Amino acid sequence: MSKEIAVEKEPDDVKAERMAKFQMQEQRLRKTMDKVKHKIAIISGKGGVGKSTVTANLAVAFAREGYEGKVGVLDADIHGPCIPKILGVQGERLPVGPSGIFPVTGPIDIKIISMAFLLQSEEVPVIWRGPLKMTAIRQFLTDIQWGNLEYLFIDLPPGTGDEPLSVMQLLPELDGVVIVTIPSDVSQLVVKKAITFARHLNVPIIGVIENMSGFICPNCGTKTDIFSSGGVDKISDELRVPVLGKIPLDPKICKNSDLGVPFIVNSPNSDSTKAFMEIVARIEDVLKEKEGND
Amino acid sequence: MSKEIAVEKEPDDVKAERMAKFQMQEQRLRKTMDKVKHKIAIISGKGGVGKSTVTANLAVAFAREGYEGKVGVLDADIHGPCIPKILGVQGERLPVGPSGIFPVTGPIDIKIISMAFLLQSEEVPVIWRGPLKMTAIRQFLTDIQWGNLEYLFIDLPPGTGDEPLSVMQLLPELDGVVIVTIPSDVSQLVVKKAITFARHLNVPIIGVIENMSGFICPNCGTKTDIFSSGGVDKISDELRVPVLGKIPLDPKICKNSDLGVPFIVNSPNSDSTKAFMEIVARIEDVLKEKEGND
Repeated sequence: MSKEIAVEKEPDDVKAERMAKFQMQEQRLRKTMDKVKHKIAIISGKGGVGKSTVTANLAVAFAREGYEGKVGVLDADIHGPCIPKILGVQGERLPVGPSGIFPVTGPIDIKIISMAFLLQSEEVPVIWRGPLKMTAIRQFLTDIQWGNLEYLFIDLPPGTGDEPLSVMQLLPELDGVVIVTIPSDVSQLVVKKAITFARHLNVPIIGVIENMSGFICPNCGTKTDIFSSGGVDKISDELRVPVLGKIPLDPKICKNSDLGVPFIVNSPNSDSTKAFMEIVARIEDVLKEKEGND
Repeated sequence: MSKEIAVEKEPDDVKAERMAKFQMQEQRLRKTMDKVKHKIAIISGKGGVGKSTVTANLAVAFAREGYEGKVGVLDADIHGPCIPKILGVQGERLPVGPSGIFPVTGPIDIKIISMAFLLQSEEVPVIWRGPLKMTAIRQFLTDIQWGNLEYLFIDLPPGTGDEPLSVMQLLPELDGVVIVTIPSDVSQLVVKKAITFARHLNVPIIGVIENMSGFICPNCGTKTDIFSSGGVDKISDELRVPVLGKIPLDPKICKNSDLGVPFIVNSPNSDSTKAFMEIVARIEDVLKEKEGND
């Protein structure tokens, strides 16, 4: 594997200014984020692999398993925020009280922050370049009254640009990243970049989830690998990353996301939910092991 | 529909510097781009909707229909370039000659530029923030010997951030954008933003393509709407944009993309290819009509 990475070199004066501002805000950021025990980012190489669906369902799974009121979701996709729609809180506004701005409260008392809560209507695009996106994400992590949380799940947009870079630079204590992909070769190509990205930034990789892994016809039961198959196992062998599990392609998942009810709640007995709950158990194991080592 | 748009305000000094540089480069950019007759950008709200597959197949369709050697593709997805893989030229390098840097030549003499041709290996992520991405895209449009082209298709990454904004600012003469989406509500939510984005920047919308529109079981023929259905018609009614067509979900499309052979070449008799060729005809009509009006 090549160790060469294409990283942008920041001009010295820009860096100096950024660092000064950063140090001032760092203290406030730490005050807020030190109250959050575990921070997990969900990333992908390509978009449209179901990253937001995985994030929303992870939050629900952990909230149901003894952490009600102690789970938060930061939707860090500035241009295409989907978390509010999937968790059924689309159209809500951020509550403001004497002590500051609070997250929106979703199902099972999940605390949610998303750009979608700040826009006048769902048609409004956020036409922002990188530096402003960094500022927004920093404010979401700093100036929101998240309170004491056990888990914060951060849904990052695809790619290795401004938003993922910002979150990883702002939160060096990140427990790790969960990488979501689909089985196609084209997707694997991009997920390799995400793995190298996380390693380059010294962020632990909790594991890879293969989503949309085979479709079972509801009429005849025939399995079709619509987006190919076997991709994630190749990646796992080649780049030595653990596979957390494979989630079958299931029309119910999309339907439930459109309805704003997480599929693990609405379709508890589906194969997809079973696969997902095994993934949740594996993530819990990784975090427990990490805690034991700390 | 709300007319409010969240647009980043650029500081005055940053703008002045950018404009000075821009004017110097503008002349060179024009020299290159004036030799390209039609420029069409392919955008999406959400990722993973098949935008790159649509772009690659559009290029092949136009190249086969009398424009061999006169079609180019700019893969403007800096973080997740997929075009070289889909067109079977993964691993190629940009040819350099006495008169400059040339695009890679793909099938049917299609000229291709992608970040992938500049990276040491496919695992290398491009960890760049926005300003450097703008610079790269400007160079792709300015300093590459594209030659005389009839059509340049530009594959943009999802969202309404640096890359789409750069292309639309650099190429005000763009014929228009083709928007790709999938039927789900969640995807529709994001595609609305893309439509508002294009309108805000005064870029004509050629139309919307609904991809992954229903899956036919290869065993029993049952149709399943894996990613819901009817989304694009709702959008079309609501925001008055033409629907160019719907491409059924077909495992062959993914398989062909993984093999590096466009599906319209490898699966010429499939329903997907038939749907796609109707879309091509509609785009040709729009461009001809535009030409007549000019």
